[in-house]
Amino acid sequence: MSVYLDNAATSFPKPDTVYQAVDHALREIGVGPGRGGYRRGLEAGRLIFRAREAVAALIGAGDSERIVFTHSATESLNLAVSGLLRPGEHVITTTMEHNSLARPLHVAEQRGVDVTWLEADGRGCIDSRQVADALRPATRLVALSHCSNVTGTIQPLAEIGAVTRGAGVFLLVDAAQSAGSLPIDVGEMSVDLLAAPGHKGLLGPQGTGFLYVAAGIELTPLMVGGTGGHSSGLDQPTVMPERLESGTLNTPGIAGLLAGIEFIESIGRATIRSAETALVDQLVTGLGTTPGVTLYGPAEPERRGSVVSFTVAGHDPSQIGFHLDRDFGISVRVGLHCAPLAHQTIGTYPAGTVRVSPGWFTTARDIDLFLQALHTIVKR
Amino acid sequence: MSVYLDNAATSFPKPDTVYQAVDHALREIGVGPGRGGYRRGLEAGRLIFRAREAVAALIGAGDSERIVFTHSATESLNLAVSGLLRPGEHVITTTMEHNSLARPLHVAEQRGVDVTWLEADGRGCIDSRQVADALRPATRLVALSHCSNVTGTIQPLAEIGAVTRGAGVFLLVDAAQSAGSLPIDVGEMSVDLLAAPGHKGLLGPQGTGFLYVAAGIELTPLMVGGTGGHSSGLDQPTVMPERLESGTLNTPGIAGLLAGIEFIESIGRATIRSAETALVDQLVTGLGTTPGVTLYGPAEPERRGSVVSFTVAGHDPSQIGFHLDRDFGISVRVGLHCAPLAHQTIGTYPAGTVRVSPGWFTTARDIDLFLQALHTIVKR
Repeated sequence: MSVYLDNAATSFPKPDTVYQAVDHALREIGVGPGRGGYRRGLEAGRLIFRAREAVAALIGAGDSERIVFTHSATESLNLAVSGLLRPGEHVITTTMEHNSLARPLHVAEQRGVDVTWLEADGRGCIDSRQVADALRPATRLVALSHCSNVTGTIQPLAEIGAVTRGAGVFLLVDAAQSAGSLPIDVGEMSVDLLAAPGHKGLLGPQGTGFLYVAAGIELTPLMVGGTGGHSSGLDQPTVMPERLESGTLNTPGIAGLLAGIEFIESIGRATIRSAETALVDQLVTGLGTTPGVTLYGPAEPERRGSVVSFTVAGHDPSQIGFHLDRDFGISVRVGLHCAPLAHQTIGTYPAGTVRVSPGWFTTARDIDLFLQALHTIVKR
Repeated sequence: MSVYLDNAATSFPKPDTVYQAVDHALREIGVGPGRGGYRRGLEAGRLIFRAREAVAALIGAGDSERIVFTHSATESLNLAVSGLLRPGEHVITTTMEHNSLARPLHVAEQRGVDVTWLEADGRGCIDSRQVADALRPATRLVALSHCSNVTGTIQPLAEIGAVTRGAGVFLLVDAAQSAGSLPIDVGEMSVDLLAAPGHKGLLGPQGTGFLYVAAGIELTPLMVGGTGGHSSGLDQPTVMPERLESGTLNTPGIAGLLAGIEFIESIGRATIRSAETALVDQLVTGLGTTPGVTLYGPAEPERRGSVVSFTVAGHDPSQIGFHLDRDFGISVRVGLHCAPLAHQTIGTYPAGTVRVSPGWFTTARDIDLFLQALHTIVKR
C-alpha cells in the first residue's frame, strides 16, 4: 500500500490513456514531425498540431502557433526571461517564486536588468497595488507564479493583469501549479507569456512543457538549430512556432500530454478543481487538530491551490517525511521545494516545510491515512 | 508493408525493451529523481544514475558526473557553444555541420566570436591539417560533427584531436550520426565536449540527449532553475551535473535511453557497425547501377557512416521521395536535411539530395525493395 501526495512535483499516477498514447507514439508513429515528408512523419505532424490546439484551447489562446513546445516549465521560463529582457530594463517579481523563475531573473539581474522582488505577506499573497506601486518607466515585465508551490497561494492574476495591461507592461505567468486545475484564460487575465510543465496538473509525462507567447512578442530563441522546414540558411527562421522549437520534439511525450489534456477536458476542469478543493479542506481541517501543527498559506479556499505546507513544533520536516515514507509508505515532499525566498517570506527558512499536494487520483482515504500517520508520528 | 530508411532522423523501430522501459518508468516509478526523499524518488534517482553510468561507459568517459542529460543534441550543442565561447574568442568549424551546430555558432559570431568555416572537399572530408592551419592564438574551440548527416562522411577525429590537444584548444564533437554505431572514446580521441541525441543510434526515445563535459571545463548554464538539491539560494549550484540540469528530467525517456544502450551493448557495437556497413555497401553498389545516379560522400567504407545521399539526373529529390512513399511505402529523407552549407559544399544546393539511412533493424531485403522501387521510378 502506498499513498502518493507529491503531485506538485509530478502528478502520479497518470490516466491510463496517457501511458497508452506514449506507447502508441513510440511503437506506431515512431518518428517526429516535419523531418520527413513521408506518411509516418505527416502523422506525427498531425499529432503535434492536435496537441498544440488542445493547449491553446486550454488556456484560451486564439492562435495555436503561439504555443511553443518545450521540455519543461523551466525551459519555458528561461526562454521567456532571457528572450525578452535586455540590460537597463526593469522587471517586477515576487519573493514567492520557484527557482525556475527566480534564478533566470537573478541571472538577468547580473546582466544589467533591474529586478524588484515584491515581498509577499505571511500567507504568500501579493496585492495588485504592490505591482502598481513598483512600476517604473523602464518596467518591461511583471513575472510571477499563478499558484505558489510552497503555500498554494493563488495570486490575483486578473487584477495584476489589469495593472500590467493598463501600464503597457508584459505579464509572464508561471502556471506550474495551476495549469490543469485552476481556470486560466490568457485573454481575460491579460497574460502575455504563460509557462507550464506538461507533467503536473496536465497529467502528461515528464519531458514536456510549453510557453504561450502572445502575438506581437518576439523572443530571442534560447536555442537555435534544426527546425525541419526553413532550413536553407544560417539564420534562425522567424516563423512561429519553429523559431522557438529547435531540435527534435519529444513526440511521444507530447502525445501523452495531449492525452492528459483530453482526460482533463473529459472530466471537466471545474470538477477537478472542486475535488482538489475538497481534499485540501479535509487536509486543512485534519491538520488543524494535529498537535503542534502550523499551517501556511491563505485560509480562504478560493485563494488556495492543491498545495498544503505545514510544520510541526519540535519535529524536523525531513524527519516527518522520512517516517511517513518508511513507516507508512506515504510520499510527501519536505524541505525548501526549490523556493528559498518563499520560505524566508513565510518564516520557514532554512528547514522548510512538509508539503502535501493532492491530485485528481488522490482519494479522501489517502488523506485520512496521511493524517492518521502524521498523528502517530507527532505523538511518538 | 512499409520500409523505414530514415534512421539518421530518428531510429525506428526501437528495441522492444525500450518501449517496455518507458512504460515501466511511467507506470511503476512515476516520479523524478532528487525531488522527493521517498522511495519512489530514490528509485528514479538510481535509474538516472545507471543511465549516466551507461552513457559514460559508452563514450569512455571516466566520471559519469560529467554526463549532462539534455532533451536533444540541439540543446547539448547550444549549451556547449553558448556556455563556452566569449566575444573575441575564435572557433574553427566546417561547412559540413548540421544547423544544430552551425546556427549556434552563427549566433556566437553575431555576438563577437570569430568563426572559421573550414571548407570540406567534394566528399565532405576535412583534413586535420586544415584544422592545424586555421589555429590562432585566440582559438578556444574546434567544433565539428563526427559523421555528416548529409554524406555520411566520417571525420578523422583522432587526428583532429591530436591537433587540438597539442594546441591546448578544446574539441567539441557532434555525435548525432555516430553515437551507437561508430567507436567513440573521448580519451583516445581527445574529445572535450561531446553532444549526442538519445533517439538516433542509441535507440532511445525522442526527448533525450546528453552532453559530455570534460573535467576542468566550466560551462555557463543555458538554463537555470530548480536543481532538486542545492536549492537554498538564487545562485545556480556549481556541482555537476546539477549545474547544467535544471528542471524536471525526462525520466521515462532516460529509462528508454538506458534500455537502448543496454540493447546496443548486448549486440556489440562492432556487430552493429559491421551490419550497417554491409547495408551501406549494398546501397552503394545498387545505386551505382541505377541510371543517372550521382552518389555523394567518400568511397572508402571506413570513411562512411550509415548515411547515403544521392541525386538522379532529371529527377527532383522531393519527387523521388514522394513516389517512394506513396507508391512503395518507403520512407527516406529528401532536401537539405537541415545542413545547407553541406549541400553548398558538395554542389547539391538548393534542391538537396535523397538520403537513405539504414539502422540496426534494417534488412538487406529492405534495401532491395528500395533499390527496385528507385529503378522503377527512374525508368518511368
